[in-house]
Amino acid sequence: MTYRIAVIPGDGTGPEQVREGLKVLEAVAQLEGFKYETVVYDFGGERYLRTGETLPDSAIEELKQFHAIYLGAIGHPDVKPGILEKGILLRLRFELDQYINLRPVKLYPGVETPLKDKGPEDIDFVVVRENTEGLYCGAGGFLRRGTKDEVALQISINTYKGVERCVRYAFEYCRKRNKKKKVTLCGKTNVLTYAFDLWERVFHAVGEEYPDITRDYAHVDAICMWMVKNPEWFDVIVTDNMFGDIITDLGAIIQGGLGIAAGANINPQGVSMFEPIGGSAPKYAGKNQINPLAAILALAMLLEHLGEERAAARIERAVQEVCSKHLKSLAAGRMGYTTSEVGDLVVRYL
Amino acid sequence: MTYRIAVIPGDGTGPEQVREGLKVLEAVAQLEGFKYETVVYDFGGERYLRTGETLPDSAIEELKQFHAIYLGAIGHPDVKPGILEKGILLRLRFELDQYINLRPVKLYPGVETPLKDKGPEDIDFVVVRENTEGLYCGAGGFLRRGTKDEVALQISINTYKGVERCVRYAFEYCRKRNKKKKVTLCGKTNVLTYAFDLWERVFHAVGEEYPDITRDYAHVDAICMWMVKNPEWFDVIVTDNMFGDIITDLGAIIQGGLGIAAGANINPQGVSMFEPIGGSAPKYAGKNQINPLAAILALAMLLEHLGEERAAARIERAVQEVCSKHLKSLAAGRMGYTTSEVGDLVVRYL
Ligand SMILES: CC(C)[C@H](C(=O)O)[C@@H](O)C(=O)O
Ligand SMILES: CC(C)[C@H](C(=O)O)[C@@H](O)C(=O)O
Repeated sequence: MTYRIAVIPGDGTGPEQVREGLKVLEAVAQLEGFKYETVVYDFGGERYLRTGETLPDSAIEELKQFHAIYLGAIGHPDVKPGILEKGILLRLRFELDQYINLRPVKLYPGVETPLKDKGPEDIDFVVVRENTEGLYCGAGGFLRRGTKDEVALQISINTYKGVERCVRYAFEYCRKRNKKKKVTLCGKTNVLTYAFDLWERVFHAVGEEYPDITRDYAHVDAICMWMVKNPEWFDVIVTDNMFGDIITDLGAIIQGGLGIAAGANINPQGVSMFEPIGGSAPKYAGKNQINPLAAILALAMLLEHLGEERAAARIERAVQEVCSKHLKSLAAGRMGYTTSEVGDLVVRYL
Repeated sequence: MTYRIAVIPGDGTGPEQVREGLKVLEAVAQLEGFKYETVVYDFGGERYLRTGETLPDSAIEELKQFHAIYLGAIGHPDVKPGILEKGILLRLRFELDQYINLRPVKLYPGVETPLKDKGPEDIDFVVVRENTEGLYCGAGGFLRRGTKDEVALQISINTYKGVERCVRYAFEYCRKRNKKKKVTLCGKTNVLTYAFDLWERVFHAVGEEYPDITRDYAHVDAICMWMVKNPEWFDVIVTDNMFGDIITDLGAIIQGGLGIAAGANINPQGVSMFEPIGGSAPKYAGKNQINPLAAILALAMLLEHLGEERAAARIERAVQEVCSKHLKSLAAGRMGYTTSEVGDLVVRYL
């Protein structure tokens, strides 16, 4: 059997990052003896500026035929914010029903965190973010736009179906992870009394089916404080799309920055998409200075998802070696190595 | 002229904190030679459990007669989340039209931050949070509640009036503050394309009237990263109610924790309310262990608002002395002093 992987290098430094990921894929496939083929899609800002098209409708159906999607980054300085994000990234998440955004927040040995007195034993948790509804649904509108009486509405839509499958995924994941056996719901029950009333009820109803797992709740504002002050308290955090967006970026910074933060957009019954979570970083584009480790770790998540656990573990170990033995910093331009040299190093340690 | 100050000690450790604030008020009033009188209101969890009433309607009108309100903390372990917050704290903010939530994030010398390599020169900015609309308006509802087809909506309402006055306050404040002369809008224009479209348009329209001030924009997720990694980039951040709630708590932790974080709910044309932003911390109630510095700094903000700038500066200096010369930690129970001793120390350094 041959894995079919769709590759969307995207904008800015996306292609450079993905290139290193594919270099690692080739090497690890040989070592582990699995077969794959890739098809590259050119969706992104350049194509949009050329053709006016973000994602052709046919693409969605085509992408469903793959075992996984490997994404670089979407975002172009000449395109108005929102167009590419909504037209490509969010559209893929929604139309492929990738209802889980999975973000491991893990500090690798040798990587510097901006937090005092915290080490790899303290920073090791996973955020399970709902990825297809909430404030991201795009619902809302204007009244009297452009006047002094303007009203702008933005609506968070939360469904039982959407919340239940996300919460269940979190409990299942926590059980499989088998560490602190704790799921923390991150919400705002005291203010968002509709949305998080639903979340809270479902959280406890589903949680009762998992008596081996402790349930915990904290408001999103408190979660942000604790991520900085006591990250060791967390095991699995489950939350809605908007809060998830915020706390996963905060998670990225405490684990060493966007240079090392990878995420998965998962549809357990369909096709999933794996991406470094940093943006397209246009100012570094083409300079061979960006850190490809996040893209390489996204590839590891992709392989784990395909069932190639040994290959994934191999990559993760190699990344750790490169972090602790080589890189001066994880920041673009300050690693002490070029983008492609970092890719080569990871291959060497596979 | 005599300042009339309404005092709402509230729940849990609220009364203990407020007691130290009033101790400092008495001392500084004597030193500076101003007169005041206080009226204490017993709104909070105890009263609600006894009478079923959060805030009598008459209270709103009464409170409008004061020069300022001094609040301890609202929140009781025996009352369902949301009731006291909505019935007292948020109701006061909304009905008194305290449309600005002002949160200085300032690391005092001698106070420990959880961030590596950051000092008082790096952590000194102010968040201007819209305080009367957005997701806090309480709009939303359920469809088919309690069934597998449930839908829960939560609606963010943003008005030109609300956004404009908030953004203008931020620019005015930035000019008066006269430091980096930069206002950063914290939003999510690429996803919340209605709400932050309004915010962004108003931000630039109002900002054009302030050519001496640099305008900057960042998504809320990036802001959270930078608050941890590069807090020195910020001067004044302006944002909506929900994002403001999140980033001000993150701000509290980087400035040393809830023990030192004070906030103001401001209606420039009406009565304003000043509070330590930590909760009621029921587990410390009555133990004389909570840190009263946040409440004391809230009092300083209150006095500054009344025009007693010298008194406010005196308190701020005294708090700094106490932090750098005395306290072992800002955390409750680990200060090396009791709550009332800390109040006494501040009085000594006035
Ligand atoms: C690019 C943007 C639309 C996206 C999001 O907000 O989800 C990103 O921040 C992320 O977290 O993947
Ligand atoms: C208690 C709660 C309703 C309140 C809020 O969310 O505004 C608090 O977190 C704050 O920031 O003052």
